[in-house]
Amino acid sequence: MSPEHLDRRVASARAHVKALDANALLVTHLPNVAWLTGFFASAAAVVLTPSALHVLTDFRYQESVTNMLAAGELPSGTNITIAERGPDEAAVEILESSGADAIAIEAEHLSVRRFNRLRSLLPKGTHLVEADPFVERLRAEKDAVEIGIYRVATARLAEMCAVLPTLISPGREEREIAADIDFELKRAGFQRPAFETIVASGPNSALPHARPTGRRLVPGDAVVLDFGGVYGGYCVDLTRTGFIGQPTESFLRLFDAVTEAQAAAIAAVRSGVHAREVDAAARRALATRGLDGAFGHATGHGLGIDVHEFPRIGRPAPDAEDPVLRGGMIVTIEPGVYVPGTGGVRIEDDVLVGPDGGEVLTDIPRGLMIPGAR
Amino acid sequence: MSPEHLDRRVASARAHVKALDANALLVTHLPNVAWLTGFFASAAAVVLTPSALHVLTDFRYQESVTNMLAAGELPSGTNITIAERGPDEAAVEILESSGADAIAIEAEHLSVRRFNRLRSLLPKGTHLVEADPFVERLRAEKDAVEIGIYRVATARLAEMCAVLPTLISPGREEREIAADIDFELKRAGFQRPAFETIVASGPNSALPHARPTGRRLVPGDAVVLDFGGVYGGYCVDLTRTGFIGQPTESFLRLFDAVTEAQAAAIAAVRSGVHAREVDAAARRALATRGLDGAFGHATGHGLGIDVHEFPRIGRPAPDAEDPVLRGGMIVTIEPGVYVPGTGGVRIEDDVLVGPDGGEVLTDIPRGLMIPGAR
Repeated sequence: MSPEHLDRRVASARAHVKALDANALLVTHLPNVAWLTGFFASAAAVVLTPSALHVLTDFRYQESVTNMLAAGELPSGTNITIAERGPDEAAVEILESSGADAIAIEAEHLSVRRFNRLRSLLPKGTHLVEADPFVERLRAEKDAVEIGIYRVATARLAEMCAVLPTLISPGREEREIAADIDFELKRAGFQRPAFETIVASGPNSALPHARPTGRRLVPGDAVVLDFGGVYGGYCVDLTRTGFIGQPTESFLRLFDAVTEAQAAAIAAVRSGVHAREVDAAARRALATRGLDGAFGHATGHGLGIDVHEFPRIGRPAPDAEDPVLRGGMIVTIEPGVYVPGTGGVRIEDDVLVGPDGGEVLTDIPRGLMIPGAR
Repeated sequence: MSPEHLDRRVASARAHVKALDANALLVTHLPNVAWLTGFFASAAAVVLTPSALHVLTDFRYQESVTNMLAAGELPSGTNITIAERGPDEAAVEILESSGADAIAIEAEHLSVRRFNRLRSLLPKGTHLVEADPFVERLRAEKDAVEIGIYRVATARLAEMCAVLPTLISPGREEREIAADIDFELKRAGFQRPAFETIVASGPNSALPHARPTGRRLVPGDAVVLDFGGVYGGYCVDLTRTGFIGQPTESFLRLFDAVTEAQAAAIAAVRSGVHAREVDAAARRALATRGLDGAFGHATGHGLGIDVHEFPRIGRPAPDAEDPVLRGGMIVTIEPGVYVPGTGGVRIEDDVLVGPDGGEVLTDIPRGLMIPGAR
């Protein structure tokens, strides 16, 4: 009954608020609310003070959040407020009665408008502390409960993926294949796709961010499938590549290069390493084949309640941070190359960072899928 | 080849910027970027000056946005910038060289952090004008191209809905039914669900915002299906209610009350009327049955690129605006009642506001679905 993992999350957030010299935290970013409380909603906020935690939501969630409270699924001592007017009015009331005069807000997410509004509602002299995205940083290192969710989610994904090679056959539309993938995700127990499923064939496969179209698969097509699901509130993300008919030599060279680049990047993953080094491993492998110019995106990203989370695994911008990988982080490793005329290849897996290396959670065949081949 | 409708949208945005005494607009909110330019992307911004329009995006969209430019699918005279560093750096470069010194930003959407960052990148003395969400207001009144998209989308939705009564049969899981609905949406040509499909049965039907669970339908269950799809970038949204087995008298009373309340609200829709009056029409109908206390959400909302848009059709908060409906708006009308023990009922349609009344675009049977009944 005791949500110890949630209490630990709340305690770590409190420690950060204290370090900011603030005596309250207003959490308005919904994934952060979900992580802190286990309560996933489309309208919610948290007021955290040194001695209390308040969850604010609206009428629509009254019954479900009350049930969670009764079942002991919220952090210990959670108070629930159903905000009749707006969440900000309710938050201000709680903050005022707590006597907080230095309130940390999520500067990365709170809009200029809402910030100004809060300032006008709060007593004069209240200091709003523009906090860094520290909850996102805390979210990056998954705890045992979250890793448990990922083990179940990736096992379900692996089972579901057996069907992939049967979906890509000549004559089928990209859009139809995407619908099948989404259906299989739901059937495998995922709540919803983690993002709009990508099925990119032929010339579209050379677009790193293509949307499925009515294009029908024809022999000679490369086919990139990039999709993910949400399970227990957490996102998995996978890419596999196939080919219709006999792959050309030039395409196989691309595929082998990406396979090697991905393996090199995965081999570079372990706690303590800089994200830039993991990215560089993939780029070096492609450079030896003269393909580094065809790889235009980052090597990967953190995964969690958001499908793109801290840390980004790429070349940091000149003045940007180069994050260090920590144990418990779950990241994608997804190099790709895109060559107009030949096609695109991307291979993506979800990797748990550990002290001695990365553990690939998505234990799913990653060879080139060729329908009809055996 | 000439995207006249886009040029009109850009012209109306320019007029608003001028009225704000600003000489540039930075659009960072993606649905607003999409509406202004026709370019739907997960990373994009627009810099609009009196004489130029710049679309900023990243590598992943380079090919697709270049193709749109070549095909004449962007506003006349659009410039494309592929931002290598970040979108804000690229925007600042363009803004600086345009000589703009009063730049309107979207205060409703721009985060405090990004606002501070822009301020630090821009030349000293540049004024950032915190604009109201005027693009959202412009988006509310759909033009002929958008209404055309809605006619196709709702016709596709109507065809797809013939399958609904066959999906809800005893023994099936809520989650399974939701997967079927999402699959049928894709098969009907929708890009993706507009939101997480709701299938709420039995006691869950009394939760206005339930998520599909593993619960299996049993005789005596009310079943609320609330779902939508994205077509051509625009959202449709529909709710229908069913019952497993012989409906109880008390349930039929709820259903009849909601049917009447919806009809009353739809009858109140026309351009020039206040949203509050449409909401009040639904509430009055429920009050005559003593059910106004069981209706806890708003009567409806605008529909468009976002599934929840301006205007909200509800009781405005004490100090909030009561919007006026205008011709071309597309809104949902979706009263519902939720009675623990008896169940929930919600009926939702998409209505085009016209000078003489509302036109229900979702011409889809809205009677109680009872599987097996004929």
